[in-house]
Amino acid sequence: MPTNHNRPHAPRVGVWIQGALGDIATTMMVGALAIRQGLNSTVGMVTRIPPMDALDLASLDQLVFGGIDIKPSSLRESALAVHRSSRTFSHDTLQGVLPGLEAIEADILSDRDFSWRLRAPHDNAMPLADVVARMREHIRAFRARHALDHVVAVNLVSAEPRAPESDALQRLDAFTAAIAADRKDLITSSMCGTHAAFLEGCSYINFTPNAGAGFPAMQELAERERLPYYGNDGKTGETLVKTVLAPMFAWRNLQVMSWEGVNMLGNNDGATLHDPDNRVNKIHNKESVLKEILGYNPHAGVDINYVPSLGDWKTAWDLIHFRGFLDVPMTMQFTWQGCDSILAAPLVLDMVRLSEFAARHGEHGAMRHLSGFFKNPIGVNEMAMHLQFDMLTQYARRHLRQAGKKEIGGSVA
Amino acid sequence: MPTNHNRPHAPRVGVWIQGALGDIATTMMVGALAIRQGLNSTVGMVTRIPPMDALDLASLDQLVFGGIDIKPSSLRESALAVHRSSRTFSHDTLQGVLPGLEAIEADILSDRDFSWRLRAPHDNAMPLADVVARMREHIRAFRARHALDHVVAVNLVSAEPRAPESDALQRLDAFTAAIAADRKDLITSSMCGTHAAFLEGCSYINFTPNAGAGFPAMQELAERERLPYYGNDGKTGETLVKTVLAPMFAWRNLQVMSWEGVNMLGNNDGATLHDPDNRVNKIHNKESVLKEILGYNPHAGVDINYVPSLGDWKTAWDLIHFRGFLDVPMTMQFTWQGCDSILAAPLVLDMVRLSEFAARHGEHGAMRHLSGFFKNPIGVNEMAMHLQFDMLTQYARRHLRQAGKKEIGGSVA
Amino acid sequence: MPTNHNRPHAPRVGVWIQGALGDIATTMMVGALAIRQGLNSTVGMVTRIPPMDALDLASLDQLVFGGIDIKPSSLRESALAVHRSSRTFSHDTLQGVLPGLEAIEADILSDRDFSWRLRAPHDNAMPLADVVARMREHIRAFRARHALDHVVAVNLVSAEPRAPESDALQRLDAFTAAIAADRKDLITSSMCGTHAAFLEGCSYINFTPNAGAGFPAMQELAERERLPYYGNDGKTGETLVKTVLAPMFAWRNLQVMSWEGVNMLGNNDGATLHDPDNRVNKIHNKESVLKEILGYNPHAGVDINYVPSLGDWKTAWDLIHFRGFLDVPMTMQFTWQGCDSILAAPLVLDMVRLSEFAARHGEHGAMRHLSGFFKNPIGVNEMAMHLQFDMLTQYARRHLRQAGKKEIGGSVA
Amino acid sequence: MPTNHNRPHAPRVGVWIQGALGDIATTMMVGALAIRQGLNSTVGMVTRIPPMDALDLASLDQLVFGGIDIKPSSLRESALAVHRSSRTFSHDTLQGVLPGLEAIEADILSDRDFSWRLRAPHDNAMPLADVVARMREHIRAFRARHALDHVVAVNLVSAEPRAPESDALQRLDAFTAAIAADRKDLITSSMCGTHAAFLEGCSYINFTPNAGAGFPAMQELAERERLPYYGNDGKTGETLVKTVLAPMFAWRNLQVMSWEGVNMLGNNDGATLHDPDNRVNKIHNKESVLKEILGYNPHAGVDINYVPSLGDWKTAWDLIHFRGFLDVPMTMQFTWQGCDSILAAPLVLDMVRLSEFAARHGEHGAMRHLSGFFKNPIGVNEMAMHLQFDMLTQYARRHLRQAGKKEIGGSVA
Repeated sequence: MPTNHNRPHAPRVGVWIQGALGDIATTMMVGALAIRQGLNSTVGMVTRIPPMDALDLASLDQLVFGGIDIKPSSLRESALAVHRSSRTFSHDTLQGVLPGLEAIEADILSDRDFSWRLRAPHDNAMPLADVVARMREHIRAFRARHALDHVVAVNLVSAEPRAPESDALQRLDAFTAAIAADRKDLITSSMCGTHAAFLEGCSYINFTPNAGAGFPAMQELAERERLPYYGNDGKTGETLVKTVLAPMFAWRNLQVMSWEGVNMLGNNDGATLHDPDNRVNKIHNKESVLKEILGYNPHAGVDINYVPSLGDWKTAWDLIHFRGFLDVPMTMQFTWQGCDSILAAPLVLDMVRLSEFAARHGEHGAMRHLSGFFKNPIGVNEMAMHLQFDMLTQYARRHLRQAGKKEIGGSVA
Repeated sequence: MPTNHNRPHAPRVGVWIQGALGDIATTMMVGALAIRQGLNSTVGMVTRIPPMDALDLASLDQLVFGGIDIKPSSLRESALAVHRSSRTFSHDTLQGVLPGLEAIEADILSDRDFSWRLRAPHDNAMPLADVVARMREHIRAFRARHALDHVVAVNLVSAEPRAPESDALQRLDAFTAAIAADRKDLITSSMCGTHAAFLEGCSYINFTPNAGAGFPAMQELAERERLPYYGNDGKTGETLVKTVLAPMFAWRNLQVMSWEGVNMLGNNDGATLHDPDNRVNKIHNKESVLKEILGYNPHAGVDINYVPSLGDWKTAWDLIHFRGFLDVPMTMQFTWQGCDSILAAPLVLDMVRLSEFAARHGEHGAMRHLSGFFKNPIGVNEMAMHLQFDMLTQYARRHLRQAGKKEIGGSVA
Repeated sequence: MPTNHNRPHAPRVGVWIQGALGDIATTMMVGALAIRQGLNSTVGMVTRIPPMDALDLASLDQLVFGGIDIKPSSLRESALAVHRSSRTFSHDTLQGVLPGLEAIEADILSDRDFSWRLRAPHDNAMPLADVVARMREHIRAFRARHALDHVVAVNLVSAEPRAPESDALQRLDAFTAAIAADRKDLITSSMCGTHAAFLEGCSYINFTPNAGAGFPAMQELAERERLPYYGNDGKTGETLVKTVLAPMFAWRNLQVMSWEGVNMLGNNDGATLHDPDNRVNKIHNKESVLKEILGYNPHAGVDINYVPSLGDWKTAWDLIHFRGFLDVPMTMQFTWQGCDSILAAPLVLDMVRLSEFAARHGEHGAMRHLSGFFKNPIGVNEMAMHLQFDMLTQYARRHLRQAGKKEIGGSVA
Repeated sequence: MPTNHNRPHAPRVGVWIQGALGDIATTMMVGALAIRQGLNSTVGMVTRIPPMDALDLASLDQLVFGGIDIKPSSLRESALAVHRSSRTFSHDTLQGVLPGLEAIEADILSDRDFSWRLRAPHDNAMPLADVVARMREHIRAFRARHALDHVVAVNLVSAEPRAPESDALQRLDAFTAAIAADRKDLITSSMCGTHAAFLEGCSYINFTPNAGAGFPAMQELAERERLPYYGNDGKTGETLVKTVLAPMFAWRNLQVMSWEGVNMLGNNDGATLHDPDNRVNKIHNKESVLKEILGYNPHAGVDINYVPSLGDWKTAWDLIHFRGFLDVPMTMQFTWQGCDSILAAPLVLDMVRLSEFAARHGEHGAMRHLSGFFKNPIGVNEMAMHLQFDMLTQYARRHLRQAGKKEIGGSVA
């Protein structure tokens, strides 16, 4: 992925991350820097395979990283911690990217006031209006400092409790009023981030199971500002396999009686999801895919267990008990041993590139062609992975036809 | 699946089976009878799901079974043996179908002379010309006895050694000459069956890894007789999963470094495949799918181990070692515990129905829309299961449009 | 296991079962009858291997079955249901034993009044004193009807909630007073059974996680009556494997960081254990074994999930994450697919034989040599299976030495 | 494991390694250095658990490493390669031990002439007598250079083909004659190493499946020289689990019908074992353990597949198909994902310490108390791991009693 110095007016693209010091964000920045320096391959990036690789996407060289977090840490510390605990990227990669990471630190604002507990709203003194204002200010400064052509906001914070139903989720004016009234019992931290992002003209990707832009009030704002957005809940492991495998049972008219899944993980995400409040959204997203693909509801359980020693290495075991001809019961099991951040980070880079591309081409609203990246894709009922992937390739082909390009893999980064 | 008494002139369809006393054939007949009698569901039959279920296919009631084998046994004995050793269909089902099975016995011809060893051709005194003649005669008598409108020939014999390359495989005249010259070193038993079937106007399905209709000489005959045919090597277990799962790694740009598969099975098929000569075709078919789907050749091994105690219950374990972002290695494993006959039998019924349908509609040649049923589909390079299934549904939809039918699930059996 | 007609005065041994219509009880009686009739082997019975097989144990022919249940069903119905839902014993076995099962029906008393909810004590009108009296009366009648020399009482009921701590559990007089005062909030149904059994001079085996004879008040009674007893919670599947495998990590100084277990099951036991109240005892028993064997507490989770389609086929998956030399993390997984009743039933027969043997030899109190049969062995801290099994063989060898027998496998049944 | 400065006259112990640049040897030296420096724990060392840890064993500080290899490489290169390809020890550990490794280089002699092909004996010009002489000379120089009190020779070379039966294996005089006659068709390279070691008064450990000291001629020499020795074939992964787990089936009278094992590995060992000639010994050792433990021979297959991408991470999958009560078939599977070198290296350190201890106490001949470390323990039929481990602890306790020590864990290293 050599640098593309020749492109005239190559746009500078900001990536403004909520949760900038988390495992996925850290891994994404380490990866982008490592690829730029030729230390690692681009394996894992969907925008590097045909026909997506022929689109005129921003190269990794054009991306500028920044964002906010609530942890009083640094990107350097985060990178060292990920390296130590998860044994993912090599020591050579780490050494190679440290200077680059340090250059990003100035664009990361860490503020404990960006967080509060939904069920106990008064543990944070800073009014919501101030929270949103600080976030907007940070985005504006980030854009100005780097002369950015466009900023993509990305939500990578930990799982939050589900906010209660309210008018604030249904209508933009009610949402704005709830901000003004400092209703921390109705509004989560990541909603403030989405709000700030749209008000500042950012396109938006929500990789978390949190509300993101997945509710009417926020979509009203996105439409008003004519911005593209998508989410929710990145599909990286067990659910990815599930949405690839479940169609097989449908195609062969094999009746799934039970599909039980167990997820073991040991990172911050695991610790957060250990709290039943926080995993409501996640489990809902994981469970609902089968019904749509199979056309009926098998007995399906999804457990998420916090196993600290695993670190970022998620181990999932699924048991599928199904009936075949003559009603004979049979069994399939799979074990998935993947590193969450490693699976997630390249997808975020993919979607940053595709979001900027969409914005540059004047597209706005839900980017349904990104449905295959998410457990709970906004506005898409189709859950089978091959059909979701098809939406992405058709999108790419349509743009290539319009640009008069042949579908050959071009050099992009 | 109630009987369709109302259809005028419902065609009577013969199913002439080579290997009629084997596990798959026995299970297929047990199943067809059990479904007719309402003892079991039609789970496992692909022609029972939309849009295929809206096609005007022959019902199970219209099927008449017969065929040949080399074992000096009876269908009743075979059914008892399958029930005992594999614990698949229930005792109630067995009891219910025994009278029906006994009625079929008269249409099964068991003759040891239908078999010889390719490498030691002189252990069978009956000349090839006589073998073919006896087979043809049996088909003719079967058709006459039951006033059949059409006969579908099905190859369900055990794995044979691969025949040596020769002109007899390339040209019909050379094939015919080899039959006349009694070249048992060039011609296998199941080739004789295919030959006899085409000469008698049967459409033809080869569910085995044997040559079937997968060579030019035989395809020349099928074209001359304007008959539809397809094969080879039914895709029921590990390879099915592989062709469903491998695209996931491609879609996510995850690089498969190694994909190792181990198959344990204990039925006749297992015993036969224990002989390296006999498994050449099978392992070739299993290994070649990854290259086509991934676009490169990962390290890929396929073992087939004979484990008698498993009976018909194949247990496959696959280990997939792949590289993701930042070149991090990750792992997926799956275990498949399925009963081969139970998985295979309904697919044979499906293809019998679809073959008769094709013949009735004047179609001939390779039925490429059946590619998803086979490990090594004739004339189709596409190995990804979702694309193969798409070929079948498009075929069905085209026929439904032509027939002016809406795509709603109708009662077929 | 031919009948032993030659033994003079072969004792007649009653097996009085609480939960006589449950899956384990049914399977045990089916099995005992099938072995007597030569329909099945004695595989699975520990008393059939050396040196236990050389002890002068009661043969299966000497056993007479009876008991109580709360389900308004019959043994015949139970056997049909187990056969249908779990596909364990064959149809031939079922047919062979049905007459024998029917002969047992008269000795089974089904009474809904033998059950009440601990947390809602007033749903049962029959006073506890009457419950105990009816149970005692049933045992007496059973003994008289069959001229039994000894009765072994066996607890095979479903999991009950844990009874609250109280004096009734600590002292026999307080227990008796609680019975008299009809304290259904303190006393469970299976406690009444144990009480009745001891008062009637039965030896006693508790295969369930329930209180059984595992509390001081009941042990006081057993000692007073000089009766042998043992429990709790039969060790048949995942915990068995755990207590065999965990010592390996200790022997090799490999540090277990996490040992996570997931149990899926679909029988009545599964349904009962789905209620968190009912699984408190079970999970406690499953978790406590690691600490004792390893000498430290790894992160250890045990899930029990109710998956109806599995029936009696328990599927357990365990993930063991451990550290080796140079602190390198490594992984072991296992999957156990066993049929609970099939694993449990022969062990109950073993313990019936060993209990009668102990009683006949004047032994009383906790039969610690049976510790290897239980997840939570009374009065034994040792959890490693090889040491527990050693206790059993040493017991057998001591008796054989006393009897002047050589340790050669004799015909026992 | 602090240094033991206070012990008077602490012996200096040489570790002379055949295969000194291999993965296990490298990992062992890295580990010994890392533990000395406090960089890593002693997890994985059996001599660190009671009662072995109370024996007066040589500390790791007293060990001096050296040896021979046939690869033209360096220890530094080997350590870098292991770190890179297997991701086992950390970068910090590597950096910490590099100076120590470099200090060892001078004691490692790399000579291609120490190797030849058994089946094609004339590819090496150096006569066997010279090979042995060079090895002896190297041991003598190593001992002198470091003023060693005792040298333990350790065989860690790759798997060799099995040498043909001959008098040279049966009698020491015939062996010596074969050396003199340069019979490279009868004598393997590692036999020369054993020979040289015994002639130089070394005790000897063979961790490989090669002949080692496992044949009469060499044992005659060991006895003459009154030296302790042991082997063959270190038990680190699948076979370890097998010898722990198989007794469970015996204890429960569960009949193992089939036990199929598949080993995938990608290190040099894997490449070597890929050649069927080289894996004869290994597979024999792996298969023979079941018969001894179970008392009968189940169907048992052992596959060893070379999967380069796995590096040193062996992945084994075992399928155990067994029969229980009422002859019901059930299944257990396990997957073992361990790093071979990491599992093996600490055991070699343990046996070096125990060999020197034995030699110091005047013991000679086969060290049967080490049987639990080997797949094919010399002179021991007992294969069950718990009984083998018992032999070790009894040995330790006997010595502790003789030394008047209480069995409390002392500081040893």
